[in-house]
Amino acid sequence: MTDDYLAVVQLHAAYVAAVDAGDWDAWCNLFTDDCCYRLVPRENHDRGLPLATLSFESKGMLRDRAYGIRETLFHDPYYQRHVIGLPLIRGRDAGRIRTETNYAVFRTKLSEPTTVFNVGRYLDEIVRTPDGLRFAVRLAIYDSELIPNSIIYPI
Amino acid sequence: MTDDYLAVVQLHAAYVAAVDAGDWDAWCNLFTDDCCYRLVPRENHDRGLPLATLSFESKGMLRDRAYGIRETLFHDPYYQRHVIGLPLIRGRDAGRIRTETNYAVFRTKLSEPTTVFNVGRYLDEIVRTPDGLRFAVRLAIYDSELIPNSIIYPI
Amino acid sequence: MTDDYLAVVQLHAAYVAAVDAGDWDAWCNLFTDDCCYRLVPRENHDRGLPLATLSFESKGMLRDRAYGIRETLFHDPYYQRHVIGLPLIRGRDAGRIRTETNYAVFRTKLSEPTTVFNVGRYLDEIVRTPDGLRFAVRLAIYDSELIPNSIIYPI
Repeated sequence: MTDDYLAVVQLHAAYVAAVDAGDWDAWCNLFTDDCCYRLVPRENHDRGLPLATLSFESKGMLRDRAYGIRETLFHDPYYQRHVIGLPLIRGRDAGRIRTETNYAVFRTKLSEPTTVFNVGRYLDEIVRTPDGLRFAVRLAIYDSELIPNSIIYPI
Repeated sequence: MTDDYLAVVQLHAAYVAAVDAGDWDAWCNLFTDDCCYRLVPRENHDRGLPLATLSFESKGMLRDRAYGIRETLFHDPYYQRHVIGLPLIRGRDAGRIRTETNYAVFRTKLSEPTTVFNVGRYLDEIVRTPDGLRFAVRLAIYDSELIPNSIIYPI
Repeated sequence: MTDDYLAVVQLHAAYVAAVDAGDWDAWCNLFTDDCCYRLVPRENHDRGLPLATLSFESKGMLRDRAYGIRETLFHDPYYQRHVIGLPLIRGRDAGRIRTETNYAVFRTKLSEPTTVFNVGRYLDEIVRTPDGLRFAVRLAIYDSELIPNSIIYPI
């Protein structure tokens, strides 16, 4: 179990490093081909409402977002910095490790002080692949009811 | 030792998940029957002064607070989100594992941006019970000298 | 590996506890004699520019800073609180463990609310010594392009 936990921790840490470095290829590669990534307000998640701020349903859609970020989206540049807590093992079934992990994301814009951008929790389903552990499902459920009008990068 | 550390980490992570979900029954159940929970300003802790913002000295008092939160306290609703660091093992004696863990708690009120609410460190004494590890003592020592006038939920 | 990882985690946690307690002797002792500690803006690090906000190149220089903090620097007192994420193992070579770890530092001044002070990542090189793991190199690379005019304590 502790070897498994270390691998889970390394997957989470690799995700954070990839996203905060803006290394979108590395980010995509932490997911399975038929993955699901969704960024959802807590209110909607708690009520079972389907609206999501971001929703990608395959690695292809992640790659499309990565392309968009690099090539087509016009936006103020900003840095993200994730600090995540300790993953809680929620269970294992059918080869999947389910974890819950709190996160805070800070944003730094050019010549502005750093602010709290988005906080919430990840609900993940993690599977073993020949390349190591990967996210089959990653839900990022955030607390604020204000919909940020400028979520460009994944959380 | 690493198995023990994993169990300590899971206890901390379960605490955070319970509190941020507002699952007060789960929160109470992470403590021993004769537990002590105190929320204390750093100044008072450092000087040995007894004043605490919250102080509960048994699981019964925790349950009373949980009842109060659900039934009797009038307050603006808000979400809490804890992000905690890596527990430092401070020692073991008489069957107790003593840990120190930094935390940040973010607060989100309806239609307001998320803010930094309370930061500090937990000083814990953790014991083994038939149900797994539990908090015998949890001190939450916070940095701000401003006493928040609206700490409704435990930190 | 997991025993090693636990030792790495404890080193990180001990650092945070020492710095946030203002225990500068303990802080110095977490480094090797010929250590390197640098606090660098992300822009400069990414472009290979040498300018650093703080730069110490031996344990003697750390001790000098510690002396300065205690005896000679005039400044508004403030508390720091670090919350760090999960260390990512970047590699091992020549007896060094290289890790990358995100951090957020919160600052609390007397009678003011807590604010986000500095966020970024640590790039570390950790070595085994007779006294346990120690930092041979610690780079703290922070996101904000605003140079804080009041970084008194190490990050």
